[in-house]
Amino acid sequence: MSQNTVRIAVAGAKGRMGREAVRAITATPDLTLAGVLVRHVDDEVLHDFDTSAYDDAARLLETEQPDVWLDLTTPATVVNHVNLALDHGVRPVVGATGYGEEDLSRWDELARTRGIGGIACPNFAVGALLMMRFAKEAAKWMEKAEIIELHHDQKKDKPSGTALRTALAMETEYEVPIHSVRLPGLVAHQEVIFGGTGEILTIRHDSLNRESFMPGLILACRRVMQLRQMVYGLENLLW
Amino acid sequence: MSQNTVRIAVAGAKGRMGREAVRAITATPDLTLAGVLVRHVDDEVLHDFDTSAYDDAARLLETEQPDVWLDLTTPATVVNHVNLALDHGVRPVVGATGYGEEDLSRWDELARTRGIGGIACPNFAVGALLMMRFAKEAAKWMEKAEIIELHHDQKKDKPSGTALRTALAMETEYEVPIHSVRLPGLVAHQEVIFGGTGEILTIRHDSLNRESFMPGLILACRRVMQLRQMVYGLENLLW
Amino acid sequence: MSQNTVRIAVAGAKGRMGREAVRAITATPDLTLAGVLVRHVDDEVLHDFDTSAYDDAARLLETEQPDVWLDLTTPATVVNHVNLALDHGVRPVVGATGYGEEDLSRWDELARTRGIGGIACPNFAVGALLMMRFAKEAAKWMEKAEIIELHHDQKKDKPSGTALRTALAMETEYEVPIHSVRLPGLVAHQEVIFGGTGEILTIRHDSLNRESFMPGLILACRRVMQLRQMVYGLENLLW
Amino acid sequence: MSQNTVRIAVAGAKGRMGREAVRAITATPDLTLAGVLVRHVDDEVLHDFDTSAYDDAARLLETEQPDVWLDLTTPATVVNHVNLALDHGVRPVVGATGYGEEDLSRWDELARTRGIGGIACPNFAVGALLMMRFAKEAAKWMEKAEIIELHHDQKKDKPSGTALRTALAMETEYEVPIHSVRLPGLVAHQEVIFGGTGEILTIRHDSLNRESFMPGLILACRRVMQLRQMVYGLENLLW
Repeated sequence: MSQNTVRIAVAGAKGRMGREAVRAITATPDLTLAGVLVRHVDDEVLHDFDTSAYDDAARLLETEQPDVWLDLTTPATVVNHVNLALDHGVRPVVGATGYGEEDLSRWDELARTRGIGGIACPNFAVGALLMMRFAKEAAKWMEKAEIIELHHDQKKDKPSGTALRTALAMETEYEVPIHSVRLPGLVAHQEVIFGGTGEILTIRHDSLNRESFMPGLILACRRVMQLRQMVYGLENLLW
Repeated sequence: MSQNTVRIAVAGAKGRMGREAVRAITATPDLTLAGVLVRHVDDEVLHDFDTSAYDDAARLLETEQPDVWLDLTTPATVVNHVNLALDHGVRPVVGATGYGEEDLSRWDELARTRGIGGIACPNFAVGALLMMRFAKEAAKWMEKAEIIELHHDQKKDKPSGTALRTALAMETEYEVPIHSVRLPGLVAHQEVIFGGTGEILTIRHDSLNRESFMPGLILACRRVMQLRQMVYGLENLLW
Repeated sequence: MSQNTVRIAVAGAKGRMGREAVRAITATPDLTLAGVLVRHVDDEVLHDFDTSAYDDAARLLETEQPDVWLDLTTPATVVNHVNLALDHGVRPVVGATGYGEEDLSRWDELARTRGIGGIACPNFAVGALLMMRFAKEAAKWMEKAEIIELHHDQKKDKPSGTALRTALAMETEYEVPIHSVRLPGLVAHQEVIFGGTGEILTIRHDSLNRESFMPGLILACRRVMQLRQMVYGLENLLW
Repeated sequence: MSQNTVRIAVAGAKGRMGREAVRAITATPDLTLAGVLVRHVDDEVLHDFDTSAYDDAARLLETEQPDVWLDLTTPATVVNHVNLALDHGVRPVVGATGYGEEDLSRWDELARTRGIGGIACPNFAVGALLMMRFAKEAAKWMEKAEIIELHHDQKKDKPSGTALRTALAMETEYEVPIHSVRLPGLVAHQEVIFGGTGEILTIRHDSLNRESFMPGLILACRRVMQLRQMVYGLENLLW
């Protein structure tokens, strides 16, 4: 194991996103798995993961001293986990949702005090990040815009979080109506349509499976090592 | 002028659609202009149109005895015009809007009594007619659907008439939500998105200028000669 | 097991499509699994399938006397299998590819002699079938068209079989250029774009996973019972 | 007329683009028309344009001493015009095509010597410029891309100039196949499709009429005043 490897603890390793993340980290030469946090350490866990498994966040942090805490758990646990990681001087990369603006400010303060970085991002798909970034830029030059977000009909909430964040980024320029389409067969798609004089500009993102999050997740695990503050939204680090 | 020419009177010949229609009829070998109805017969009208101009519908019908009455006027006048045309045994092709179901029933009765045909159609673009027809068919086979209609931001009403008619045609199968996008730069567009198991079917129509109505209008002027009833929606005559 | 159940033998049951088909048939009340054909009957097969497993097509046909032979095998075996099924008076539903026009004619002759039906169809996604059907209709009314087919970059052949079949169905009207896009992240998509006077009509199909074939496959297994000939393309049975 | 007004000479004022430009400049408070160059000064020209008309570029430049030379002429004349304008210390904004890389270098040298700016841009639609800019950025982050450009069937050349320039901007990253669709009913459209792991990003531009060039043209006339070199592609000035 090289000195330059980034050592990552994965919290929520048994979830669908967690399993993908463990697989992706293991397959990436400059990243190493430094332990996983699961709800219960049982035989299946010991069999599935080729690393130390813990059911206690503090013990994992103290024993393994990872570089990065990748949190893919639930709204119920994410805030405590990230507080704890920062207290131990470990950089959080937060893919879970359920935190608020106050949490983000506190994390930023803790990170700056410690001189370390952190990234919180509800959508790690690189294409989605580019869409948000481009939409923000285009809003400066095009007269008006509307968003259409399209998801499978099992998705309960609307509008989607990504649509809300995209609109928010654009709304320093003008208000942006959001339309939500829910149909079987759809996965996760979004279209930002800009209207101008005699022309239309459309930015569309199609996310077809969970793997789409991995390149962004890995990018975040690398970039967080150079930061000295908490960054919300990986799109802000894409250039 | 051949015996087989269909002789058409155009009501509303000075409007934007009317002017296009006069141009299209003049350029079509098997159609002939049999007179135009305008609000006021002035020098400009006499100069612009290479046919007899009238400001009185009854006089035009009696003097010219056209085969077809093409009505491109306004909600204020269309009902009277079509009543009058049918009373004179002249087949109406109605592109104007502003009539109701009662008008359609009365026209159908008049047409059947006279043994002549009539067509009323709010959208003569062949592609739009195909979209409506296909949407109706697909609704039988696909689980659910939503409609997105997109128009320039000067359009006051929403949803568009075409969206409402498309949804109506599909709603024997299930309810169809309609989303209305209004942006500068757009012209007139509609997307019908069907969701199924692991698949999506989309039917989209883009109408980019008024000329798109002409092929359908000409088709209607020909087809109306073979009918013995009033037909609502040219899409029902497309096969 | 009701008298009205259609009893289906699945050839190629261990393949990815075969496994999906076994699952779909088992979950459909009016269909029953009448046995599976696999290359080798081993412990895994006996464990996986809740029906009799065979490695010999003739023995399966003779022992189980199924109503339908669903063939999801390979170009190397499909022709022999279907010949055999028809010889035994069993209706073939052919999802495999690798047969030619001569095979189809022979199968049709065999089916007619026997007074039974058969269906061969390279794409069972209902949305794709509708796209092909609509494209054929629209080609009669719109001036010109082009096809864009988009697939993942692992797909070796281009243009895709579906694009070729769509173009063929339209080309009684005019020639149809096909564009092939190959990119990672894509699954299987096709767009048929029609141009007319001032308007565009687009029919698009997105197939996002293998499940999309199941509703069409099940439909074929039911419809084949009413046929007295070999039908190529399920789209011809969709109305 | 305010001191802060930019005074613009329009070469090619009788062409379709030229007429639009004259209209747009006249309607913009901080821009003033400083004369037009036409092939022949006749009664129609004197009637149409509310400014001095010339048929000799040098005389226009010497007499009117404009701030900006907006060239919307043809490949046959554009190079001489721009040389002349720069010789007279007048900033060129070049919408015409037909110049080469050597011309651009010479113009840049002349502009730098004179301490003035210039802009040459084959497509002034702001949405198209954003598309090119975003495509260049996205190419750094997404694995592969293809371009589909769609134009009316009267367009003789393919691929379109915009598609070639977009591909060129992206091709520092990888090669980009271009597909050209030509259909009646289309105007000028382009789609850049990026594929990544489990995701697709699409940037699409639709140009529906000539007016779409005006906001970019006006922007160029303003920005050129702050430049001290020749810039190729307005997209490079959009941030």
